[in-house]
Amino acid sequence: MNAEIITIGDEILIGQIVDTNSAWMATELNAIGIKIAQITSISDNPEHLAEALDNARKRASIILMTGGLGPTKDDRTKDVLTSYFHSKLVLHQPTLDQIQAMFSARGLKNIQLNADQAMVPECCTVLSNPVGTAPGMWFEEEGVIFISMPGVPFEMKQLMNDEVLPRLKLLSSTERIVHRTIQTIGIPESFLAKQLEDWEDALPEYIHLAYLPSPGLIRLRLSAFGEDEQVLETEINNQVEKLNKIIPEAIFGYGEVSISEVVGELLKSKKSLVAIAESCTGGMISHEITSVPGSSEWFKGAVVAYSNEIKEKLLGVSSKTLVEHGAVSEQVVLQMAEGVCKIMSTEYGIATSGVAGPGGGTIEKPVGMVWIAVAGPTMTIAKVYNFANNRERNIIRASLTALDMLRLMLKK
Amino acid sequence: MNAEIITIGDEILIGQIVDTNSAWMATELNAIGIKIAQITSISDNPEHLAEALDNARKRASIILMTGGLGPTKDDRTKDVLTSYFHSKLVLHQPTLDQIQAMFSARGLKNIQLNADQAMVPECCTVLSNPVGTAPGMWFEEEGVIFISMPGVPFEMKQLMNDEVLPRLKLLSSTERIVHRTIQTIGIPESFLAKQLEDWEDALPEYIHLAYLPSPGLIRLRLSAFGEDEQVLETEINNQVEKLNKIIPEAIFGYGEVSISEVVGELLKSKKSLVAIAESCTGGMISHEITSVPGSSEWFKGAVVAYSNEIKEKLLGVSSKTLVEHGAVSEQVVLQMAEGVCKIMSTEYGIATSGVAGPGGGTIEKPVGMVWIAVAGPTMTIAKVYNFANNRERNIIRASLTALDMLRLMLKK
Repeated sequence: MNAEIITIGDEILIGQIVDTNSAWMATELNAIGIKIAQITSISDNPEHLAEALDNARKRASIILMTGGLGPTKDDRTKDVLTSYFHSKLVLHQPTLDQIQAMFSARGLKNIQLNADQAMVPECCTVLSNPVGTAPGMWFEEEGVIFISMPGVPFEMKQLMNDEVLPRLKLLSSTERIVHRTIQTIGIPESFLAKQLEDWEDALPEYIHLAYLPSPGLIRLRLSAFGEDEQVLETEINNQVEKLNKIIPEAIFGYGEVSISEVVGELLKSKKSLVAIAESCTGGMISHEITSVPGSSEWFKGAVVAYSNEIKEKLLGVSSKTLVEHGAVSEQVVLQMAEGVCKIMSTEYGIATSGVAGPGGGTIEKPVGMVWIAVAGPTMTIAKVYNFANNRERNIIRASLTALDMLRLMLKK
Repeated sequence: MNAEIITIGDEILIGQIVDTNSAWMATELNAIGIKIAQITSISDNPEHLAEALDNARKRASIILMTGGLGPTKDDRTKDVLTSYFHSKLVLHQPTLDQIQAMFSARGLKNIQLNADQAMVPECCTVLSNPVGTAPGMWFEEEGVIFISMPGVPFEMKQLMNDEVLPRLKLLSSTERIVHRTIQTIGIPESFLAKQLEDWEDALPEYIHLAYLPSPGLIRLRLSAFGEDEQVLETEINNQVEKLNKIIPEAIFGYGEVSISEVVGELLKSKKSLVAIAESCTGGMISHEITSVPGSSEWFKGAVVAYSNEIKEKLLGVSSKTLVEHGAVSEQVVLQMAEGVCKIMSTEYGIATSGVAGPGGGTIEKPVGMVWIAVAGPTMTIAKVYNFANNRERNIIRASLTALDMLRLMLKK
């Protein structure tokens, strides 16, 4: 079964928001065997939406729309759908009750703009939205399903999970898609492709490989298409096993797992704790770690040492070392990693010091040069990297690389 | 002049990457008076691309494509374009030279996969890509311009800035669009809409207002359409001035400025430094701050205190207070904020302590409850918030709110 996604809102076409909804929806729909044929972003203009619906219904049997349902005047999706399906707006009392309950729980008064949100086209099935004021709407016409949801990501996600996906699951066809995502770190894309060439060439025709690079990481995605899910699963497992023999160190996990989660599991299995001393990564490693629920079980804390004074005073880096070698040096990161273990009483420590850019580079220490150290119970190691990217990417790559160095130490 | 963007790659339709390129391109194109009529995401399938090009050229005079130019087998855009324009692949020597130079600078050998990147359709104008192996390609046919660029965001951006935008600027029509983005914080969307209702109703017809909410922030975007840029600028300035009188505290900046940048400018003007003590925000405030180039001028460092032991030992929070009031309490954040100022010798300090979730909530201290304190030279204040969202959004909203509390203190 084919679906199309239409995102509605001038804000996407004008570039002021990034469409993260479509990627999430596509993943969820794929998982139940629904392929996305096209994603289209259009403006809030009423004629444009009607035209897009006319086009999409020729190609797909399910059309999912997001956006244009807010309480403000620039949101017009509901009016367009009401006239597109020759219907009229009526009050939906359960929605009104829920909006009023939501506002009084927050100690706020329900203003008219929000009450208007409870008006819905008479011909639609209302999909309850417990986390926002705009309900979802489900229409069917001539064998095509049209679903309208708010554009606010967490509202859309809740509606998809609670209302839309369970209904679509009942309809979906016999074609199955099995995906497996393999997370890799440490090998650049063209080198990875070279290493995997023979394996890739030998993949069965019904299995497709995609490289999904992002700063510091490359995800490999295997997609198998066929009728028997069990057969697809088995063959994908075989292929992943082969892959694991080619690049055993580079694979850190499967699916949407993050490197922080993998590090966390390893630390928990060793009943050990980690502490971080961050200079150029500026809190990013700690943020990556604390994005994982329950990370307080294995993460004790961090010092972001954005000045030499803090490196000395809090982390115990010697002022002589700082003067002789500079903050971006092997000697300093070694002392930072060991220092943070000591002050936080942890078995493991990570430290970074580098030139994130855009300023601060020299010939000896150019922008993108980062020293990373990892301290463990038996040794402390340090490595230098030259990421040579912009500030944002240098920070991300240094953070992920540091976590990967800890992962490799924990695995030994 | 109308443009359309086509992003190519199964990875977008399958939901494994988010399309950030289109938003960036749309912003840049808008700024030179080119409106985006539609953004379409399609698969790597050759027929699908040819069909999308056939459709787009009916509606737009400029078609920008991203993706499908990598060195790996799943990338097929170049072959499709070669046959779409009835051309053939030829070697482009400057591209080959540049690829070889790039690889030898990194101490790597240029493998065949990368050398193949220097083969281009004979009929295109090659757009040099100094930061990657895939050059951009510019085609013209029957008055329509077709531009193909890599999907890797930083490569696409460099090509747009250096090659594409300067060329398109010369072609663009007389219709001008002037946008102004106003960044607000602290007022929920429906309440903001209510407060702005009269002002919005009185806007001239050629000025359009959009609300762009994201966790913790709402951006307002005014767009003025017309022929005389100066007239549009003047009227937009008038409207922003009126707006500023309605919500003076909530506006923290204009354009793509972040709240960290605003806080940084205020601290620099006072020649003051800030330090952060983060519990539930786990490094996010430090990361927001250190994302700003040059932030070491006004940010000294942070302690991420993810355990009570660190709060006591490093930040000097009294163990009695921790036992009596718990880590998520007014008393503890006040001590954390003052403690971090003291150990880092800064004039200003921020502290957070809360329940990020999903675990750890109680009836008295539910998920989403966050205490935030800001310490300054003359006083320390603390406030409690109930964000009641998921972990990710609680962390973001607490971080932005903490920075905003500091901003308001600095402005007084």
